Amino acid sequence: MKSLIVGQSGGPTSVINASLAGVYYGAKKKGFDKVYGMVNGIEGLLQDHIIDLDEYFLDKDNLELLKRTPSSFLGSCRFKLGSIKDHEETYEKVFEILDKHSIDSLIYIGGNDSMDTVESLSDYAELKKKRQNFIGVPKTIDNDLPITDHCPGFGSACKYIATTLREVIQDNNCYGTTKPTVAIVEIMGRHAGWLTSAAALAKDETCEGVDAIYLPEIPFNLDTFVEETTELLKKKPSLVIAVSEGIKTEDDKFICELNASNLAVDSFGHKELAGCAETLCKILKEKLGIKTRAITLSTLQRAAAHLASKTDLDEAYNCGVKGAELAFDGQSGKMVYMDRVSNDPYKIEYKIFDDIHKIANIEKKIPLEWIDVDNNYVKDELVNYLRPLIQGEVKQIYKNGVPQHINMKK
Amino acid sequence: MKSLIVGQSGGPTSVINASLAGVYYGAKKKGFDKVYGMVNGIEGLLQDHIIDLDEYFLDKDNLELLKRTPSSFLGSCRFKLGSIKDHEETYEKVFEILDKHSIDSLIYIGGNDSMDTVESLSDYAELKKKRQNFIGVPKTIDNDLPITDHCPGFGSACKYIATTLREVIQDNNCYGTTKPTVAIVEIMGRHAGWLTSAAALAKDETCEGVDAIYLPEIPFNLDTFVEETTELLKKKPSLVIAVSEGIKTEDDKFICELNASNLAVDSFGHKELAGCAETLCKILKEKLGIKTRAITLSTLQRAAAHLASKTDLDEAYNCGVKGAELAFDGQSGKMVYMDRVSNDPYKIEYKIFDDIHKIANIEKKIPLEWIDVDNNYVKDELVNYLRPLIQGEVKQIYKNGVPQHINMKK
Repeated sequence: MKSLIVGQSGGPTSVINASLAGVYYGAKKKGFDKVYGMVNGIEGLLQDHIIDLDEYFLDKDNLELLKRTPSSFLGSCRFKLGSIKDHEETYEKVFEILDKHSIDSLIYIGGNDSMDTVESLSDYAELKKKRQNFIGVPKTIDNDLPITDHCPGFGSACKYIATTLREVIQDNNCYGTTKPTVAIVEIMGRHAGWLTSAAALAKDETCEGVDAIYLPEIPFNLDTFVEETTELLKKKPSLVIAVSEGIKTEDDKFICELNASNLAVDSFGHKELAGCAETLCKILKEKLGIKTRAITLSTLQRAAAHLASKTDLDEAYNCGVKGAELAFDGQSGKMVYMDRVSNDPYKIEYKIFDDIHKIANIEKKIPLEWIDVDNNYVKDELVNYLRPLIQGEVKQIYKNGVPQHINMKK
Repeated sequence: MKSLIVGQSGGPTSVINASLAGVYYGAKKKGFDKVYGMVNGIEGLLQDHIIDLDEYFLDKDNLELLKRTPSSFLGSCRFKLGSIKDHEETYEKVFEILDKHSIDSLIYIGGNDSMDTVESLSDYAELKKKRQNFIGVPKTIDNDLPITDHCPGFGSACKYIATTLREVIQDNNCYGTTKPTVAIVEIMGRHAGWLTSAAALAKDETCEGVDAIYLPEIPFNLDTFVEETTELLKKKPSLVIAVSEGIKTEDDKFICELNASNLAVDSFGHKELAGCAETLCKILKEKLGIKTRAITLSTLQRAAAHLASKTDLDEAYNCGVKGAELAFDGQSGKMVYMDRVSNDPYKIEYKIFDDIHKIANIEKKIPLEWIDVDNNYVKDELVNYLRPLIQGEVKQIYKNGVPQHINMKK
């Protein structure tokens, strides 16, 4: 009798449930007798809030629905275990619950903070000679995890951003010279500009693309921004500009901080950003007297399962399957990652990264040589990196005009 | 030799180009020898800015692309002709250009303001014994035109709103009781709540739906709103609330006006609204100390052709075809409209409304008996009215991971 428990943590993505589907499928196939899910991640586990996934997913149709359901089926949390030294009771509680249910392996699907949790639990198990093993499966729309070529969840967000921007560009162009408009589209990404760079994917022979891309990797200067926009407006009446929510001035101030003095801080100490596009629109309106429109993609970019990338969904699923295999083999403190062995044709191999200490809490940014600083754009190398990730569409299951999802019973 | 010119006006929709495709197809089939397009509506026509649509649409693949391209292929405008008495020169200029190109008929695809233009030109032609005839084809995501059962463009916007809200609800639920969040989603609609009411379509057996819907038809009370939200939060930790951008207090103030003293005004005298969800979030945060998230669907809801309703797209096309038939028959000052002769099974007949004077500048609101005021929701009658409009999906044409569109050559 061998049992596994799986959890989801951090901000959701369009395909984090595809990874859950992969873990479930892979675990059963490998020979786990029981596959449990923790409700709301480690926070729920600590309250012994767990479910038996057989109850839902012995039915293959439900597994297909799961792959197409955005957000975290199991619920998520933002919970930091803290240092082993200061929080031994919490760690002991985790193992007590795992033992109670005879659980052998734990898989955590998440981003930087979740890999931190996997690392801590694995370290604690080693230190205290506990029998359980811990595996991380990567997930983040932000694409800021090191080691892995890219993260499951990122490709679908890119496809949403590229598609939406193409539609926004069409919309914004419709008044032509009769009513020049600058639309500023705010895209997620606190410190890394990966998601914002996907704005470049809007461009092809049938779409002129966005007119500028401002990334958090490059310090942002307000005066320069107004000058650059003025220059662009001399060439065409309607502009669409993509900005990262995380762009900062040279003295390290978020653009939205220029307006709001107090920013809320989440439980990991990250500042909650909002209103960067709004702030820039206000400034352009004041200085240039033109019509502006701030569009904030908000959570839509991470939840738009109806526009998921087939490539991304398949990769998320495969990462889950690989995680289950590692778990069954008794490996611990390791993360599944993707190695791009070829770009044309695009080919990914699923590998094991041995030392999760080198992953947790490190943010991977866009290499500066992939950014075209002079033109506020990205270089072809970056577009070539991104393009394969948005290929393919997922056949949705519609009923009564809306895509179908699956939810936990209440 | 018989020629027609077609124009698009007002805010774009996902399927206004399907109506253009219908006009082109219908006009050629009926026997018009030439089908011209005016670039940027009447404003472009006055500058003799017209194109021959054969250049693009003799190729049937292009006509299919046109149906799937959001925004106005021909470009739009917001141009008021003004009264005949005060602007005779402008009217004469229009007819001079029509005569120059031997144009017999004009079709204008648009909303209230565009029907006003059709009416004025038709009146002028009658008054001055001009030979041209003028036909209106309805379009508006707002669904606020009288006479017609509903407007082309509305159904696709509803499908986008319902789908997006289902995804937002999934996303918002993911932290469960660990981090209660109220998401307020702001939906377009200045005076009529039709679009916002489509939030009710998110609900089915696999989705709990939104928790409240605030419509502009009902005066909005801030204190009551805070109380109602407090009550809802006692029952569940995560709420998604749909609000119309146009909700107003009892003393006729837009909610966003409570924050911003100056509102820009567009060329038709409409106030430019923004920030209603943002304002409400700020108030909830202050009063209840909870996490909030303002999501504004902005132009995405009118431009998301990738989520177009098949029913809506087909109807938009058919309205265009019908318009071309009326134009060929020499009718004038009339609008195509849709009559729902049966709801189950859903069946539409395309008819002619004889007197456009009864359409122009009248805004149709939601009947009060379709609103469940006590529960901040809509009644089943309204859901039954809306549901057929979002049925069916349009097969998109993807290339390189993004949906393909067609644009005018520069």
